[in-house]
Amino acid sequence: MGEEEAAPRSGTGAAIRAATARIADPEQRVLARIAEMRKRKPSLRESTITMSHGAGGKSSHTLVTALFADVLSNPLLDQLGDNAQLTVPGLDGARLAMSTDSFVVSPLFFPGGDIGELAVNGTVNDLAVGGAQPLCLSAAFILEEGLDIGLLRRVVESMRAAADRAGVSVVTGDTKVVPRGKADQLFITTTGVGLVREPQRLGFGRIRPGDVVLLNGAIGDHGSTVMLARGDVDLEAESLRSDTQPLWRLVSTLLDAGIDVHFMRDATRGGVATVLNEIAQQAGLAVAIDEDSLPVHDQVRGVAEILGIEPLYIANEGVLVAIVAKGDAERALELMRSLPEGAEAARIGEVREEPEGMVFIRTGFGGTRVVDMLIGDPLPRIC
Amino acid sequence: MGEEEAAPRSGTGAAIRAATARIADPEQRVLARIAEMRKRKPSLRESTITMSHGAGGKSSHTLVTALFADVLSNPLLDQLGDNAQLTVPGLDGARLAMSTDSFVVSPLFFPGGDIGELAVNGTVNDLAVGGAQPLCLSAAFILEEGLDIGLLRRVVESMRAAADRAGVSVVTGDTKVVPRGKADQLFITTTGVGLVREPQRLGFGRIRPGDVVLLNGAIGDHGSTVMLARGDVDLEAESLRSDTQPLWRLVSTLLDAGIDVHFMRDATRGGVATVLNEIAQQAGLAVAIDEDSLPVHDQVRGVAEILGIEPLYIANEGVLVAIVAKGDAERALELMRSLPEGAEAARIGEVREEPEGMVFIRTGFGGTRVVDMLIGDPLPRIC
Repeated sequence: MGEEEAAPRSGTGAAIRAATARIADPEQRVLARIAEMRKRKPSLRESTITMSHGAGGKSSHTLVTALFADVLSNPLLDQLGDNAQLTVPGLDGARLAMSTDSFVVSPLFFPGGDIGELAVNGTVNDLAVGGAQPLCLSAAFILEEGLDIGLLRRVVESMRAAADRAGVSVVTGDTKVVPRGKADQLFITTTGVGLVREPQRLGFGRIRPGDVVLLNGAIGDHGSTVMLARGDVDLEAESLRSDTQPLWRLVSTLLDAGIDVHFMRDATRGGVATVLNEIAQQAGLAVAIDEDSLPVHDQVRGVAEILGIEPLYIANEGVLVAIVAKGDAERALELMRSLPEGAEAARIGEVREEPEGMVFIRTGFGGTRVVDMLIGDPLPRIC
Repeated sequence: MGEEEAAPRSGTGAAIRAATARIADPEQRVLARIAEMRKRKPSLRESTITMSHGAGGKSSHTLVTALFADVLSNPLLDQLGDNAQLTVPGLDGARLAMSTDSFVVSPLFFPGGDIGELAVNGTVNDLAVGGAQPLCLSAAFILEEGLDIGLLRRVVESMRAAADRAGVSVVTGDTKVVPRGKADQLFITTTGVGLVREPQRLGFGRIRPGDVVLLNGAIGDHGSTVMLARGDVDLEAESLRSDTQPLWRLVSTLLDAGIDVHFMRDATRGGVATVLNEIAQQAGLAVAIDEDSLPVHDQVRGVAEILGIEPLYIANEGVLVAIVAKGDAERALELMRSLPEGAEAARIGEVREEPEGMVFIRTGFGGTRVVDMLIGDPLPRIC
């Protein structure tokens, strides 16, 4: 069956070389070729699922585009947002947002959180970054036979606390049990429904050259914490904790204050680098960020160094990227910093006209390099 | 941790014996004691999850009541319906329904359907039986590393076909991958949002003594088919197929025709017996059914006999129980039979005043016996 997924690729390279041959400057020519490659519809070249397909980076994107979105295609799904926004017939043009996520994190408990808290905050945040006030959640549990019921109760209590904090209720659910060895203790899928107040306010299409890129907090805490909790990294970092937290209060504070926010997304799997690449590609613009401006805790730098991965690619569970009109950037930063979940907010770069679809980082040494989407899965099962 | 789930049970039996001691007739006294037992809040006596907790019967009910609903308690969840119905603030009193289900069926493909079709129909039907027109679905996939991508594509194509047939779209989704051996090929969680046209029309509270119990089709096809497909039963039954199908058209046909339907539920895990028990307990009434009136295909009878289980307990994926006002029962049957999904519709019994909370079956030999909720899990992983 594998072959039918692989679109014919022969001649693609030649076609791209022909299309870009007229560009005289070698560096510009390479950039143009990368941009051309990116415009092609991705095709699945593997015949089986690998861990990379779940990492939120390039392989995940290909799987979603070439399989799920291809087969299930409809105007809402095709937007490939973190949430879908739909108009309900007969409801006066009001728009609802819907978002779903499965949580398979290992271990189930880690410093600063657990799978239950993640399952609530993750879905609440996917709604929030779309400008949707979370209304309610559903929760579906897949339990492995033999799971300790006391442990399950701790997870559910943690969901309750997280839901209370985020101001939502779990209104419906489901439980399935599979035999020992057919799942890994406990998987949770939450789905959220939210109310979009101003449907036209946020979107890739609103991003403009000159916009400022903001983060509400330090990056990489969640992914680093889970790796340490799993014992994969031989490092003592007792104060490192997951950043899992609900973001609706921070988002609504910006929106209510009239900040001209153009786009937001929470930087979970694939990290900030992957979100910035999605922004650059979907908006057809470039993003330039400053390495020195990135808020990163020392312990995360340590973990990242040992793993040989940049903090920009490490998952977060309480960090969002906000693209804000230049004139409102300072006020947005102040508003973020007035809240605990935005205490370490930072301005990390800006949106540019070109080269289309690319993300650049200016290093501390004065150099510049391309930041691509996450490739492979160096940090599996962090959410 | 296990102990904290087990509520103190000492004295429960004595208290119930004292409360029922005045009843002179021994048979009535036993029934009264059973009814009293049922009123007690169930407590989890196990310390680990067993397959029974996922079977949809008594253990599932206890897990949901004593753990999930206990910890996550809120007015919507406490109703323990197949779907939650909520009023959206600012949307003019319109009501939305939300329902979620995880699908872990094994094998993934079986005669008449596959996990993808089940995942769509199952959630569409949970909305439909609540009188909610399905609007959209989300789909979250948990994939095992090494899963064949061609197989995944067939499943997603099947979801697409089922969604088209049911008139809904999959508007958002998620994909997680877990390492080989940490899941069983593929689990799908779908969540549906629907629009409730007449919120006051259906509910346990509307069921009255004298109401008629209808089924839209023959029972046990799905569960029997999956057991055969798994090779657990050594029987040739080539024409046996899952009954998986969407039920909104049938439901809306009844509602649009003004049939006085009081309650509906699709009889999935735990079968028709479990749905009838929920009705009897939640409505505080009794349900009496006639064994001879139950539509059961011969091959299902054969499988049931070999497995030592009654067809009443076998799961369906396209059968609903409808409780209808007596005067409308014949017209409802006619309307059901006018549609392919209701071709084998049958009137199987009626609702009675007492004994409260009990389900009885009148056997072909003139006897009567109690039909309890499903205990244990004789047919694991059928959905």
